[in-house]
Amino acid sequence: MRSAALLAAAAALAACAGTQPPAGSDGSGSKLPPYFADPAGWEIVDLTRILDATVPFWPGRTYFPFECWDLAKMEEVGAFSRAYRVPEHYGTHVDAPAHFATGQATMEGIPAAALVGPAVVFDIRARVAADADATLTAADVEAWEAAHGRVPEGAIALLLTGWGDRWNDVAAYRNFDEKDRLRFPSYGLDAARVLLVERNCRGLGVDALSVDRGIDDEFPVHRLGSGLGRWFLENAANLDRLPPAGAFLVVGAVPMRGASGAQARVLAFVPRGD
Amino acid sequence: MRSAALLAAAAALAACAGTQPPAGSDGSGSKLPPYFADPAGWEIVDLTRILDATVPFWPGRTYFPFECWDLAKMEEVGAFSRAYRVPEHYGTHVDAPAHFATGQATMEGIPAAALVGPAVVFDIRARVAADADATLTAADVEAWEAAHGRVPEGAIALLLTGWGDRWNDVAAYRNFDEKDRLRFPSYGLDAARVLLVERNCRGLGVDALSVDRGIDDEFPVHRLGSGLGRWFLENAANLDRLPPAGAFLVVGAVPMRGASGAQARVLAFVPRGD
Repeated sequence: MRSAALLAAAAALAACAGTQPPAGSDGSGSKLPPYFADPAGWEIVDLTRILDATVPFWPGRTYFPFECWDLAKMEEVGAFSRAYRVPEHYGTHVDAPAHFATGQATMEGIPAAALVGPAVVFDIRARVAADADATLTAADVEAWEAAHGRVPEGAIALLLTGWGDRWNDVAAYRNFDEKDRLRFPSYGLDAARVLLVERNCRGLGVDALSVDRGIDDEFPVHRLGSGLGRWFLENAANLDRLPPAGAFLVVGAVPMRGASGAQARVLAFVPRGD
Repeated sequence: MRSAALLAAAAALAACAGTQPPAGSDGSGSKLPPYFADPAGWEIVDLTRILDATVPFWPGRTYFPFECWDLAKMEEVGAFSRAYRVPEHYGTHVDAPAHFATGQATMEGIPAAALVGPAVVFDIRARVAADADATLTAADVEAWEAAHGRVPEGAIALLLTGWGDRWNDVAAYRNFDEKDRLRFPSYGLDAARVLLVERNCRGLGVDALSVDRGIDDEFPVHRLGSGLGRWFLENAANLDRLPPAGAFLVVGAVPMRGASGAQARVLAFVPRGD
């Protein structure tokens, strides 16, 4: 069972690189291309933000900054140890399907294989520069596919908005307008539908606070994806260091029981250019 | 820089599989074998325990069980969200080098590449069955190498004691004796020295509470490894599903700033048997 996703991902990666897998392939053949056929040709890119109290977190009424305190001090007992408290949706984190849909999986219910797969990266930075409400559209996905081939089954979609450049400025990252509305870019519902329903992506990620735009306060993308049992990755870093296609992701989300979300260490394995 | 570790790991994996890398190889050649030359031949094994309040945690005076509380309820606001508090060294977690040595790295200072590498697995279950104080010894490492080849530079060592079978029984996992001493197996200092100093392992992992035995209350293995800037993985699951050599690990430890340790999602990519 666990290998099924890996097989699908392998087939997916083939498609991702512009090479269509054999028609009707179930991924079990030996003709699939390797992820790491040449390890010297791969780079590890860390998509994870450092977790601390300065993080520009979701401004929910009940949310609060990361806090930590010492449990043991080196000078007193010869070891250093702390505890901490933090909201589940804080820093670079994964939203479980249960975040916006009853009856869907909490964090410990997302199998490891669903957190591993080929990455497809959409870049809307040019439009975001002129419009904080810019979205990824279905037309953008179509244009991407014209250039890079069909988004593979079981891919992980990542949206590069450029918003990550504001990470160290809490006000700029949240970007409240004069009517107290959040204004930052993200997925449009049409694009999310193509990626989640038609292309069967495992999850969607973004370099901003949410996979819904700041002004989309009904959370249509969250509701669609949660209802489909998919996860989201928010506040991802370094998406500008990924190619549009060809990278491979390992989303190391902590499996907290009953959790609506959890912090994650997210690593991308990126093929080097020739 | 980031690729250096991957290259080293590739060379390491070659050695791991019994094929010695070219003498003097710095890992930069193109003759290195692939990690995933045949994706259909690999399985993903999750080495992570579910994180919750029932976890048999380190019985430190100031430690406490995982706690969580709701920040948003589905029936009230249409979304589900929580916060939690937990010690850094709780559940499946990584110890940062700073845990037992001043001036060494805290969690955010461990680079991604140092968390990725080939796994070598030592199995001392047979001895543990007769002796809760059993250790991995330097002789065990020597015997492993006689069977599987030299432990590769930059490997991640994992110790299978079988203690994980007690995970769901807090008292049995901690195993206090009548003198209130913890009694569980782990690394011996001689083996740790070979692995960390002579073989330059990136880190050591174990399926018990600590990389030091329960009775080793001076924490010699922690002190050695922390002083060398290495990390430890504790309370790992499913080590019995890994081969002695040939698996590849991605240790998804959360990069908390200034942290002595952090929860981690740990995935192993395991080659299937022929």
